[in-house]
Order: sequence, then structure tokens, then C-alpha cells
Amino acid sequence: MNVEISGTSIIGFDRGSESGDSFRAFDPRTGESVGPDFFSASVEELNAAAQLAADARISFGNVGGKKKAEFLRQIAANLESLGDLLIERATLETALPTARIQSERGRTCSQLRLFADLVEEGSWVDARIDHADHGRKPIPKPDVRSMLRPIGPVAVFCASNFPLAFSVAGGDTASALAAGCPVIVMAHPAHPGTAELAGSAIREAVKSCGLPEGVFSLLFSKGYDIGQALVRHPRIKAVGFTGSRSGGRALMEIAAARPEPIPVYAEMSSVNPTFILPSVLAEKAEEIAAGLHGSFTLGVGQFCTKPGLVFLPASQHVESFKNKLAELTAATAVSPLLTRGIKAHYEGATKERADLRKAVAEADSDGFAVKAELFETTAESFLQDAKLGEEVFGPATLLITSGSREHLLSIASSMDGQLTASIFGTENDLKDNADLISILETKVGRLIFNAFPTGVEVCHAMVHGGPYPATSDSRSTSVGTNAINRFCRLICYQGFPPHALPDELKDENPLSIWRLVDGRIVVPSQPGL
Amino acid sequence: MNVEISGTSIIGFDRGSESGDSFRAFDPRTGESVGPDFFSASVEELNAAAQLAADARISFGNVGGKKKAEFLRQIAANLESLGDLLIERATLETALPTARIQSERGRTCSQLRLFADLVEEGSWVDARIDHADHGRKPIPKPDVRSMLRPIGPVAVFCASNFPLAFSVAGGDTASALAAGCPVIVMAHPAHPGTAELAGSAIREAVKSCGLPEGVFSLLFSKGYDIGQALVRHPRIKAVGFTGSRSGGRALMEIAAARPEPIPVYAEMSSVNPTFILPSVLAEKAEEIAAGLHGSFTLGVGQFCTKPGLVFLPASQHVESFKNKLAELTAATAVSPLLTRGIKAHYEGATKERADLRKAVAEADSDGFAVKAELFETTAESFLQDAKLGEEVFGPATLLITSGSREHLLSIASSMDGQLTASIFGTENDLKDNADLISILETKVGRLIFNAFPTGVEVCHAMVHGGPYPATSDSRSTSVGTNAINRFCRLICYQGFPPHALPDELKDENPLSIWRLVDGRIVVPSQPGL
Repeated sequence: MNVEISGTSIIGFDRGSESGDSFRAFDPRTGESVGPDFFSASVEELNAAAQLAADARISFGNVGGKKKAEFLRQIAANLESLGDLLIERATLETALPTARIQSERGRTCSQLRLFADLVEEGSWVDARIDHADHGRKPIPKPDVRSMLRPIGPVAVFCASNFPLAFSVAGGDTASALAAGCPVIVMAHPAHPGTAELAGSAIREAVKSCGLPEGVFSLLFSKGYDIGQALVRHPRIKAVGFTGSRSGGRALMEIAAARPEPIPVYAEMSSVNPTFILPSVLAEKAEEIAAGLHGSFTLGVGQFCTKPGLVFLPASQHVESFKNKLAELTAATAVSPLLTRGIKAHYEGATKERADLRKAVAEADSDGFAVKAELFETTAESFLQDAKLGEEVFGPATLLITSGSREHLLSIASSMDGQLTASIFGTENDLKDNADLISILETKVGRLIFNAFPTGVEVCHAMVHGGPYPATSDSRSTSVGTNAINRFCRLICYQGFPPHALPDELKDENPLSIWRLVDGRIVVPSQPGL
Repeated sequence: MNVEISGTSIIGFDRGSESGDSFRAFDPRTGESVGPDFFSASVEELNAAAQLAADARISFGNVGGKKKAEFLRQIAANLESLGDLLIERATLETALPTARIQSERGRTCSQLRLFADLVEEGSWVDARIDHADHGRKPIPKPDVRSMLRPIGPVAVFCASNFPLAFSVAGGDTASALAAGCPVIVMAHPAHPGTAELAGSAIREAVKSCGLPEGVFSLLFSKGYDIGQALVRHPRIKAVGFTGSRSGGRALMEIAAARPEPIPVYAEMSSVNPTFILPSVLAEKAEEIAAGLHGSFTLGVGQFCTKPGLVFLPASQHVESFKNKLAELTAATAVSPLLTRGIKAHYEGATKERADLRKAVAEADSDGFAVKAELFETTAESFLQDAKLGEEVFGPATLLITSGSREHLLSIASSMDGQLTASIFGTENDLKDNADLISILETKVGRLIFNAFPTGVEVCHAMVHGGPYPATSDSRSTSVGTNAINRFCRLICYQGFPPHALPDELKDENPLSIWRLVDGRIVVPSQPGL
């Protein structure tokens, strides 16, 4: 692909104007702005994108799984063919290491291909067939068949911390397109050039696959107004968002106040409590300390799954654990956060906790760079200060020493919803702490044994979700194949003749998918592709 | 069961006091109140019920499928053992015919038993296993396993129009209990005695099955305050509601404004557009007229699936259809609506349409009784008056004659979300109207060919749902086995040792359920029960 960064929104096959408010990306290493200028979309451009999406809704919603798979794979290929241009721009705009950006591109493309495989195989639609029984008394039983169908045009808001995997061509977009929904993406102002490159990759795939232009648009905006207008737009039927709690909540409220409320899938804040039980501390204090350090400083602590609260027993081994962790933290390279705002927030939050400071990386900082910080407190103090349970986005974590199981249970019970909780211990510890696990189950989307929460495997069983405020919708996941269900709704056909049914629901099962037929799962002898 | 109607709320195994505001049921035939007095629950009683539900949340959430099945079947048996007491009270409070109440009891018990079968078999939890690959490069693949788990205590609001099947022991309660969620029901003030009897049947089943008392409570309230406080209560994690659009929207707004927003499944208003195409009118004008009359007057027109808008072609046969329908409408027995409020609303709405009147049942009315009414207009007029598209709850329908396909498509495109749409025609008509079907697909939960929408089959493939304002959540259904998903959320376990996993996720598959293992559906050779 031959792509230049123009700074204008992508409105179907057209481009936005250069008349809106302009803004620039920043190099987090220096804090200096970098060209070119990006131009905020106008309300007219937003309306045009929404109308194109609405016009494409039915035809794209009727595109078959094989064609959708071809489209998703083409997006992945286009992203790859951007080569170093994409890697360099994303690195420039985020200051994340090249290797991280490369691996994030790999993850983004794998994700697109995983959804391609899913929709090509086709069984994901949860097809159900209940045959008629015309002789049933007192009234005949009708023929009823159901499946998942696309919910309609989806608005996707890019995350600051994953310029590729949770942004323009990331998981929300991939799963919405896979479901058959047109997508309008709001670029994140921290990495607009990366957004435009990824957006061009999608637009080119729409073109080359012969799909309607309304399948994809990308809007830039300096402020919040266009994004909010997008969520308010009557043509939009669902929203995907990854970002701050205040941002997500604002969109939830806008969506709930619409004449027609729509679902918002916002992934917001999580402190990912990590429980280290006495047994492992005796054996592996330093190993776990090193693992925790790697996890809480990964991506300069800008992971939604960063372990932000670590519960430790009051054991004799806890000091060597803390000392090792303090030593590693002090030796951590000072690294730039993504934006000036994230840096200001991080410095404010760590300053508030100054009296709990255990260790801090020492060095001068340029641009948006910050120091890694380690804090510690007791369970008693933690229980009395709700602010200590709030997320600090950046390379900091809080150790909480607890001498009492009751304290732990009480902390777990009063905890907000989280994406994850991790438990380090022996298998017997899990038995002895069944009550703790049962409480944590009601609080999180993912329970992890003997591993840190950073690193979210993209697979069928992954749940990257959790009760509010971790997400806006505890029923869903934004990672893994289950994410496609967010952008679908159930529909059933009663008494339809075979030719008028979708292929997924025809008796002869032309797509060879597995289905629930008269209450029993039926797997075709010839498996799908 | 030995049951007397006491008029007090059921708070776990305890009873509410007789100190709250009292109210009575009415006999819709006479408009006179009938005893005994019912007493509104206090805020303290609500809090006690919510705390009991929260206390039962984990233990009931961990009850196995077989035990839950036993419980659901015991509820059905207890309802049946109430015998004529239940039938007579429900008939008294609703004026619905005895045969209808008997069949509604049958449906209610079948529904409970269907959910019992579902949870006993166990595969409904969508178990997924992705095995580890320790040798994967660059990082090992973890073992991740997911399934649906109960969302927590659920508030259920009873419907006026189904005193059994969508009330205390109805579909919302059955699916929430099947999911493993404690339930607190708000009785409908139109049939509190029926509510108390059904509530006693559930409470006795909780007791005899040895389940924690917080699994079920039933609250009475004269006004809206206790119901609203219930939705606001932090222990409540989801809401089921069947009723008016204004009532449902009010609960949606309360739930969205909570510190922790929760899902609301409100089934509200639907006019169930019915399209009669030219081909069938030529052959079956009178048969379809009779069918439509039966459908729109069924249950005195108090079905959420009542066909409220009927689109007719401008053909030569349309007059014989209309005349037959007018004749049947005029001959319809005057019958009581459920409440004084529903009668007032119906009379107001039909009066507003007086100039469109085609036929009206003629007779004097006592109590809450009303006349069936038939209205007619043209597509042109319909397109210009949005009020004609609103639901009129009661035995009235509106015929819309359209000479143009463009009008039909334009009406369908501008239509609000609906529970159903029906098409009467030949199989070729479906082909010729593929564009209409495609539009309707985006507007409804159920598309019906050559049948009227009243009568909702309880089965695996049923979708009783639809975009707003038909329901608050277009992704869901309140009827059929898919309804259980409303009260669940996804959770995954990463790296858990076998003994700490739920049975559903153990490699050896002790429950013999079908699962998605490493991306392939695996059905046990020994099928489940």
C-alpha cells in the first residue's frame, strides 16, 4: 500500500476536510509535537459517516462468513504491508519499544485472522432449530429457528495504551466487523498518525473486497464533542470503548439517555488484586518479586491488567520479597508515559501516596517520562482509605501486608469489580482459600493461579471483562472470540420456508456448522472449514 | 400445600409486617375491591430481603445443576398442588377465563421444567477449554477455561397481563433461579393474591430443598417507591421487567444512574406489524380476517404480541377482508380489562382515533369492561401521524391500506423496534419482498410467516425480544432457554489445577456436557441426562 499521512478523517471512500480544529501528536520522549497536523471531523462529516454506515448495514450484514473472512484477512495483510512505516509511526507517537510495537502488530493481525477463522467456520452464530409438530395438542407447535445477527453500526473508541491491538484495527473493530456491523472509529489523539495508517489499511480492504464504503470510517477530533455526538447518533447501535473510568462512564450516560438507549462496552479501570499466600513466599520470594516487577512496569505500567494491589502475608519471608522488589524498582529505567495528561495524573497520584513510598526509580526525566514507584501499607490502613483501592495508571504498585484472613476476606468482599485477580500459592492453598476464591469469582472476569495478569491470551475461553467499574457490562469480554457476541442480537424466524431462511438455519446445513436442533447439539459429520 | 393469603410480603422464610400502606385487588368484572388487604413492604423489609439474597448469592450460585433442577421442579409441583385455589384467585383478580388461567399455569410449570431440564443437562454454560502450550514461542500459552456464572441477586417485576407465566414464578424468575441467582419479586398490585400463592409455592420449595432462605423473597407495594428502591439497591445485580414503556424506561434510567449500573431486561411496548400481501387476500380473505380477529382480541387484546398494525394492499379483495373483520369486531363480547388504569388508557387512545373507526363492539360495559374496536387509515396518513404507530393496549387494531411498495418500505424503515413482524403471503411473495424482510430483520426479534404473533412458543430457538422500545436490550429474549443468559456473566480460570476448577471445566468432563475444546465442539460419547 502507498500511504501518506494526510491528517484528514476517512469518511467511507472519501476524506474529511482540513477546516476543523487541528492538533498534533507528541513524541513522549521529548514532549515536542510532531507533524503533520490532524483536522477534527465536522458534524457534517460525522453525519455523512453515520449515514454511509446505515446504508451499508443491511448489505454488509448479509455478507457471508467466507467473504467476511477474506475481508478481515485482507485488513491484516494490509497492516503488514505497511511495514516499517506503521512501526515507526507508532513508536514515535507512543515511545513504546519497537519490539513491543512489532509484537502488538502481530497480535492485532492474529486477532483479525482468528475472527476470520471464526466467521468462516460459521458455528459462532448459535444456530437453533426447533422443528414444528403440527399434530401437537391443544395447539400445533410452530417451526422456530434462531441465530445471532449483527446489531448495526458500531462506534469504536481507540485506547491510548494499545495503539494497534485496542485501536483502529483492534479487537473491538475486528469483532464488530466479524459480526457484520459497519464500524466508525474515533482515533485516539495520542496516536493519530498510527490511526490513519491503520484506517487506510481497512479502507483499502473494503475497496478491494468490493464491500460498501460505509463499512468503515475513521474520525479525528481534538476534543470530546464529536465522539459524544457519535454515541448520540441515532444510526449508531452499539459502542466499544477502552479508556478511563470517567470517559467510559460519560459515554455510558450519553448512551442511556438517548431516545433509543444502546449498549456500551467500556473497558475502564482495574487494580487487578494479586494475592500472595505464605507457602510460595517461603520458596520463591525473589522469583515472584522479579515477576511482579516485570508485570507492573510492563509498557510503563500502562496495562489495564497491571497488578496494582498486591496482598502479602505477615510472614518472615515477606521482607526479602519487599527488598528484592524495592531493589528492582529503584533500578528501573525511567520511561515516558503516553501523554502529558497521563503523566500529570500519575505524578499526582504517586505524590498523594508519598508517605507510603517504599522505593522509587532514580533518574532525571525528559518529555513524559516518569519513575517507577513502589508503595506499601497494611490491611488495616487499606480498609480505612478507599482511595488506595483506585487505579494508578503507570509504573506503580501497592503492597498490602495482612496478618489476618478475615482482613483479606473483608477486603475482597468490599472490592469493586476487576478485570482479574491472581492467586500465588500451592494447590492446597486453593483448597484452604475456597472462600476467598468464591468471593473473587463474583468480582472479576478472570481468575489466575500462579501467574501475573498482564498478557491477555487471545483465545476462545479468554474473558477480558468484569463487573463495573472494570467494564460497563460484566456479561461480556473484549478479548477472545466471545467478543463477537457483543455486537449481535438474537433473531428468530417462525414458519419460514427453507429458501427464505439464512443458510445457517436450513435443514440441510449447507455451511456444515454445529447447531442446537430440537434441544440436542448436532455436529455435522463433515466438519466445517 | 396449606396456604392462606395473608397480605404480607415474603422475606426469605419470614413475613413482612402489616404496618405499611394497604391496598386491595379488584374484580375487573365489577370494578369492586376484593379482600384481603395487602401491605406495602417497608424499606427495612426490602433491605432485609436484599441482604438475605446477597448472603445466599455464593452458596446458591454454587448449587449444582441437578439440585437446581429438583428445586425448579418442586416449584412447579407446588404450583400445581395449589389446585383450584390458585386458579380461582387468578381468575378473580384478572377476569381472564378459567381455561386461559389453567393453560397459563400449564405453561408456567412447563417453563420451570424446561429450565430444570436445561440446567440438569448442563451444557448451557458455554464451557470453553483452551489448553496450555508450554512450548509456544515467544511466550508459553496459558491454560484458560471459561463458562457462564450467575450475575447475582435479580429483581423481577411482575406483568399485569400474565398473572402466572410472566409474574412471580414466571419466565424471569425461572430463568434467574436456573442461572443460580437469588430473586426478589415485586408483585403486581393487580393480582397480589395470585402473587402471594405463587410466592408461597417458591418459598416452600426453597425450604424443602434445603436451600438458603435468601434465594427468594416477594415484596408488595401500593406505589412505585419500593420497586424503585429495589432497582437502586446495591445488592441487586440485574432486573427483569414486563410492562409499560414508561415504567420500563423509568427503571432503565434508575439502573443506569446507580454508582454501579446494572442490566435491565424490560419488555415494554410493541405494535407487531402484520403485512398481508395481495396473493393471500385473493384466496383467503375471510380466513385471515377471522385469524386476525382472534389474535387481536385474545386475552382482551392484552398481549404484548397483539397485532396492532395490519398493512393491507389496495386490492379488490381488501373490502371483503375488512367487512368480515368489521362484522367479527362488532360481534365481539365486551370484556373486562385487567385494571381501571388500563381501561382509562384504552378508552383515551380509542377516543383519539374515533375518526378512523371502522367497527366497534356494541354492548354496555360493567367494571373494567371495554369494547373491541377496529380502525382504518391509509399509508399516507399513517406516515404523517407518528401517534398512530404507538401501542394501544387492549382489543383494538389498525388497518393501513397501502397502494405502494415504496410506502411499505418507508414505513418499515421508520418503524420503532418491535417484538415481532408477521408476513402473510405465498413463498414467492417472500422472494419478491426480500427487501422488506431485510428491513424488518433489523427491527424485530421474531419474523413470522403466515401466522399471527400471539402465542409465543417456549423452546430453545424462541426470541421474545427486539430493539428498543420493544425491549431495553435487543440482544436478549425473555422466553425460551436463551433467557437464562440474561442472568449470567462470563468468567474464566487461568492456570487452575483440576481440583479447583468447576466440574463443567474439568478435563474428564464429569457432567458429560458438550464444550468448546481448543476451538472445536466436543460432544461426550455418553450424552448427558
